Amino acid sequence: MVIGTNEIKKVVLAYSGGLDTSIMITWLKENYNNCEVIAVTGNVGQDAELDGLEEKALNTGASKLYIEDLQKEFVEDYIFPSLKAGAVYENSYLLGTSFARPIIGKRLVEIALAEGADAICHGCTGKGNDQVRFELAVKAFAPTMKIIAPWRTWELKSREDEIEYAEKHQIPLKITRETNYSKDMNLWHLSHEGLDLEDPANEPKYDQILELSVSPEKAPDRPTYLTLSFEKGLPVALDGKKLDGVSLIKALNKIGGANGIGIIDIVENRLVGMKSRGVYETPGGTILYHAHQALETLCLDKETQHFKQGVSNKFAELVYNGLWFTPLRESLSAFVDQTQQTVTGEVKLKLYKGNITNVSLTSPYSLYNEEFASFGEDVVYNQQDAAGFINLFGLPITVQALLNKVGE
Amino acid sequence: MVIGTNEIKKVVLAYSGGLDTSIMITWLKENYNNCEVIAVTGNVGQDAELDGLEEKALNTGASKLYIEDLQKEFVEDYIFPSLKAGAVYENSYLLGTSFARPIIGKRLVEIALAEGADAICHGCTGKGNDQVRFELAVKAFAPTMKIIAPWRTWELKSREDEIEYAEKHQIPLKITRETNYSKDMNLWHLSHEGLDLEDPANEPKYDQILELSVSPEKAPDRPTYLTLSFEKGLPVALDGKKLDGVSLIKALNKIGGANGIGIIDIVENRLVGMKSRGVYETPGGTILYHAHQALETLCLDKETQHFKQGVSNKFAELVYNGLWFTPLRESLSAFVDQTQQTVTGEVKLKLYKGNITNVSLTSPYSLYNEEFASFGEDVVYNQQDAAGFINLFGLPITVQALLNKVGE
Amino acid sequence: MVIGTNEIKKVVLAYSGGLDTSIMITWLKENYNNCEVIAVTGNVGQDAELDGLEEKALNTGASKLYIEDLQKEFVEDYIFPSLKAGAVYENSYLLGTSFARPIIGKRLVEIALAEGADAICHGCTGKGNDQVRFELAVKAFAPTMKIIAPWRTWELKSREDEIEYAEKHQIPLKITRETNYSKDMNLWHLSHEGLDLEDPANEPKYDQILELSVSPEKAPDRPTYLTLSFEKGLPVALDGKKLDGVSLIKALNKIGGANGIGIIDIVENRLVGMKSRGVYETPGGTILYHAHQALETLCLDKETQHFKQGVSNKFAELVYNGLWFTPLRESLSAFVDQTQQTVTGEVKLKLYKGNITNVSLTSPYSLYNEEFASFGEDVVYNQQDAAGFINLFGLPITVQALLNKVGE
Amino acid sequence: MVIGTNEIKKVVLAYSGGLDTSIMITWLKENYNNCEVIAVTGNVGQDAELDGLEEKALNTGASKLYIEDLQKEFVEDYIFPSLKAGAVYENSYLLGTSFARPIIGKRLVEIALAEGADAICHGCTGKGNDQVRFELAVKAFAPTMKIIAPWRTWELKSREDEIEYAEKHQIPLKITRETNYSKDMNLWHLSHEGLDLEDPANEPKYDQILELSVSPEKAPDRPTYLTLSFEKGLPVALDGKKLDGVSLIKALNKIGGANGIGIIDIVENRLVGMKSRGVYETPGGTILYHAHQALETLCLDKETQHFKQGVSNKFAELVYNGLWFTPLRESLSAFVDQTQQTVTGEVKLKLYKGNITNVSLTSPYSLYNEEFASFGEDVVYNQQDAAGFINLFGLPITVQALLNKVGE
Repeated sequence: MVIGTNEIKKVVLAYSGGLDTSIMITWLKENYNNCEVIAVTGNVGQDAELDGLEEKALNTGASKLYIEDLQKEFVEDYIFPSLKAGAVYENSYLLGTSFARPIIGKRLVEIALAEGADAICHGCTGKGNDQVRFELAVKAFAPTMKIIAPWRTWELKSREDEIEYAEKHQIPLKITRETNYSKDMNLWHLSHEGLDLEDPANEPKYDQILELSVSPEKAPDRPTYLTLSFEKGLPVALDGKKLDGVSLIKALNKIGGANGIGIIDIVENRLVGMKSRGVYETPGGTILYHAHQALETLCLDKETQHFKQGVSNKFAELVYNGLWFTPLRESLSAFVDQTQQTVTGEVKLKLYKGNITNVSLTSPYSLYNEEFASFGEDVVYNQQDAAGFINLFGLPITVQALLNKVGE
Repeated sequence: MVIGTNEIKKVVLAYSGGLDTSIMITWLKENYNNCEVIAVTGNVGQDAELDGLEEKALNTGASKLYIEDLQKEFVEDYIFPSLKAGAVYENSYLLGTSFARPIIGKRLVEIALAEGADAICHGCTGKGNDQVRFELAVKAFAPTMKIIAPWRTWELKSREDEIEYAEKHQIPLKITRETNYSKDMNLWHLSHEGLDLEDPANEPKYDQILELSVSPEKAPDRPTYLTLSFEKGLPVALDGKKLDGVSLIKALNKIGGANGIGIIDIVENRLVGMKSRGVYETPGGTILYHAHQALETLCLDKETQHFKQGVSNKFAELVYNGLWFTPLRESLSAFVDQTQQTVTGEVKLKLYKGNITNVSLTSPYSLYNEEFASFGEDVVYNQQDAAGFINLFGLPITVQALLNKVGE
Repeated sequence: MVIGTNEIKKVVLAYSGGLDTSIMITWLKENYNNCEVIAVTGNVGQDAELDGLEEKALNTGASKLYIEDLQKEFVEDYIFPSLKAGAVYENSYLLGTSFARPIIGKRLVEIALAEGADAICHGCTGKGNDQVRFELAVKAFAPTMKIIAPWRTWELKSREDEIEYAEKHQIPLKITRETNYSKDMNLWHLSHEGLDLEDPANEPKYDQILELSVSPEKAPDRPTYLTLSFEKGLPVALDGKKLDGVSLIKALNKIGGANGIGIIDIVENRLVGMKSRGVYETPGGTILYHAHQALETLCLDKETQHFKQGVSNKFAELVYNGLWFTPLRESLSAFVDQTQQTVTGEVKLKLYKGNITNVSLTSPYSLYNEEFASFGEDVVYNQQDAAGFINLFGLPITVQALLNKVGE
Repeated sequence: MVIGTNEIKKVVLAYSGGLDTSIMITWLKENYNNCEVIAVTGNVGQDAELDGLEEKALNTGASKLYIEDLQKEFVEDYIFPSLKAGAVYENSYLLGTSFARPIIGKRLVEIALAEGADAICHGCTGKGNDQVRFELAVKAFAPTMKIIAPWRTWELKSREDEIEYAEKHQIPLKITRETNYSKDMNLWHLSHEGLDLEDPANEPKYDQILELSVSPEKAPDRPTYLTLSFEKGLPVALDGKKLDGVSLIKALNKIGGANGIGIIDIVENRLVGMKSRGVYETPGGTILYHAHQALETLCLDKETQHFKQGVSNKFAELVYNGLWFTPLRESLSAFVDQTQQTVTGEVKLKLYKGNITNVSLTSPYSLYNEEFASFGEDVVYNQQDAAGFINLFGLPITVQALLNKVGE
């Protein structure tokens, strides 16, 4: 879809204040007849970066800047449903960037519609997953909205090109020529890609990379203990103190980060067909996933637990692929919510130099019963039943073996 | 199936030399007309326990003792196929006990048939998985062989009862009255169950429990580096030195154990319908699984990797449930083997106080290509293709959204 | 669990009035100290058999007979959830017997608890699935209730033995010595097993077997047309006339049966480890499943439709295995219900000699859009997008092929 | 990827002799500097259309025509692996068009490489699956080969436009202006799309549409019986007479077509994001799938059969999506082949007016055993085992129910 330059009078831009989206303001005005550019920043927990943002946006040509505090919604409607689902992409990735895109995309549409904008613009490259996640969110709420993705079409091919463009157009930026990892930060995680990480043969220079956490080597020599309380699959208290989701995650990020928890280094399969390599810091999230899964081993029956493994994988795949606002994701969430009715209890953990160890699991709905599993006598379980069980469970093997014998 | 006491003249007993199987020799002779009892010990890597075993068996009434060295077969035909499959039960358990039962069961049958025995006897309780795993192996190779499982029928209900029985029958055992965790050890792992571990609210007393490994706290303050070489999914060398499977695992157990690697504490779902709690030490195995999975992220394409997740889960479930000798397990292995054709390369890892960190991944079959994923220009990937991709990939969302609009 | 004969003073018996359950009344009184036997018949649509049942029960020794009309509940709470799930066991079996057992088992418990009974007795053999389904329903609502399953323990081994027992005990039955297929009938289906059907090499004698339907050969030479209306996955009207579920199924059974619809002949895998062969008549149910699935192809998006295939299979497996009252079945139903929000519309079908053919599918929520799929021009779909889509979708193939080239 | 017009000197065209590919010869020469066009027709069983094809191709400007007889390879390497897999797309579609594209695409590449061509051109529209299937096959064997898909870029938008173009360029075609369904025929099936079929509310005009078969109404009033013999999952004989795959399918197409077998009318989800509606005739294929699946119910154990359901669905999805030449498809085939070791036996069927009914199933590897399933006495199965089985199988339900009681 080639967009006629005259069709665009007003654009809503997903704005971070970084190099990319700063020069995009100028670029949009240059390429679309000096159109109005409305900048929108969704606050999903990258707080520090928000100071002075409005001035910056206006100075570089935006007509206004929306700063939307999405933190509460982000936690309750995106992070927690994924936590309950146990959604982990390719056994490792806790989806930190993935579920931050739909919520921002949705808000962009709301503002674009309210402002009567003609298009939405984002700063994602044409090689990543984020372009897909943003645009699918736009399509879900404004299926005919025009989308501008400069990285896929403009002539700039690198950070150097961008800086040159900025200087040429006198865009007032405090930028240095030193290159940097490509990062994405929010309440849940911080990702690092690019530069020497491009080659999986290179060990990450953790000392330079890590921001939310320290490496296990630098973590304290003494363990930290904490207790999480869950109600119906949701974390509601830390060390007995009720906390809202945002505060809980912030608190856990601090504790986890200090103990070197949740640093992963993976090669993942992007939706757009290539593999990529990244280092992710998810200190609080890793603790929450660990605690939630441990509690589930107590509260879910085997059949549910095993089937949920497939649901978790599919849920993660959908979220990773930007398919948050889809009937399947919603139906999987309905499944998950039903499974969580009894996932209530307390999980005490020990954190020590990158390790999370269970200290104590308790639940009023625990299906684990000391009596049933122990070696003493009891009423519920009669060991003599096992013979019959094995004979019938193994009957197909017996029949097969008898058949083989006949054939000999 | 009640077995007539006169039907049994010769029994093959799975013998460990422990309390249970020692008194079973006497019990069998007492209950089955002084039948002959042939003891069989499968060596699957629990070496230390084998010294003096023959004397012990004969002293307690066995007519002979077979000590079968199954280590090589155990690694090549059971452990490695599971490693290639990435089989992990309930996201945590590396199946150490599970796949040790079929190989022993199979050898028991071979000896029973060669000796013309009337029955096979094992010392598993009626509450666990092992009885199932043993008996299904027996059924697979001797479907009409009688099976005697004393724990399910005799009057002894506890360790105390057993000791009393031993004393009463003057069975010469060096036993003390102190109780102990229930353990299972082999080349791959060591498991601990029972006593205070029965309650998931109790933190394991790692200092008393651990044998193959030290806790992360007690591991060295400096990391250990190692490099594993894989060929078609199988580990073939450590730090550049070719090693057979048995030696490799032993070497990794030492290195891993010293660094606090591979200790887990889980509540699992037994096949026989109850939950149980165990602490497992799998130092070398945990390293191998980590390395293998990391290499797969480089060498497997996305579709294969994702589908294999379901295969891994099913494979683990089958092995856990004792269904090793079944058409489905064999068919899953055929799938797995085909996926491993390109899983060849080197994985360098850092071990540090319980943490395994990737240092370097390389493979001649790597599908990761720096050029494709990087932000620079290239030939293979044209960013403009992304727009078309997103439009078609997102078409169902667009259609749904348009439909919703019409309905408004 | 051996039940002491003195423990049982009052038994609730699942009673059909057939040979098995008739002599069980006498047998129970004989074996349990002349205990009181309360007969319970759940009416799930086998109407004709209910006349004169009370007299029969009392004459053979029961203290009373409950006849419970469960038809409405059966349709709404068991049949329709399975229909919405698209649950089909092993690609063929529509679960007619499977979901009739839980509802009866549940009512048996309710009556047993109200009557203060000590045990529940059923007439299922020890080789089938029904014993499991009944007993799991009992366990779900009365986990410590005693269960008596005479077929597993008494000395009678055949129909002949039963008749002899009846005559010997002067049980007043109108029975003939002619043997018969083992049947199970309800609102949804009629099953036939046994006799010559035992061998899959034998063609079923349909002329003698069929009761709800005629064979395609005997069906009319002219087709019958009908239209079903669905709302959120549930059938609500036939040919424009609103009908409650029970009436709808009865009406469809007539129409379908007359046209030779829904007769299957299968070898299935029982839960208890053996295969069995049966002929099933499900005329109305087959029409409903066909119509529902056809409507779903219009109203569900691809991702949901494909994932639901796995859910359907699992749902069917659970129901077949008697696991109706379990968290997983309930969670799968939550998933299913969410998917059905838009499964609303009309399905017109043609029935002709065993064939069901779609005549017309319409839905206000249809995701099929003539414009999108047609070969003419349109706005939503730009054919040029396909090139980009294919390049990215096929990127793993390209990368693999390039890698192979390099290796040549 | 915009292709420079001067880069193309020689093009290999997938040629059918129909309107589309005929005018493409002219169009290619017109748009690519009078380049040489080599036409290639893969014979996958659409025989009748091949007469006079060479003359036609040369007359319309091709430099030569390859007619490749791919029938044997098509059956053995594409159809039979799919049959063994039981691959059915969305419960209905037997993949007739899907697996015909990869084999043709592969041969196109072979010829293009041998001829030193610069590009491959196909006549698929930009809205369908076939463009993907062709191009992925090309990418698999010639990842950098240029691909020309005129329908995605040229100015012609309809059949009318094409005819006008042909007349304007004096392309010698015997075409009439009457429109027609879009069809695809090969050894396995014939598909029909377009025109009134575009609306699922329209009943197909079967009398005008059907070519391989008659409607059930027009089929004979007497049934036809046939017997198929399978060896390791492959059909090898018809009524006792050994037949190669091609002859077997041709014979079954005749018999099946005459009896109204294998006509379906479905709405399917295309890979490119839209739904489409089609009528498919697959007479012989439908018989083969039915027979193969029936035999599997006898020869596969439950666990294998159930897991294979998921494999079948995934296999079908891959084939439908053009992912034939991929590691996952090959790995799934390895799984499937292993399952088929015992799928050997005879299946006798009755065909009657659209119905396929089992007459007799026999196999030397049958796991169905009359004795096991019957109601009489036997050795292998002891009914008393069932009590123990149910108690352990139902233990999670019992525990849950006890827990609920405690909570009351």
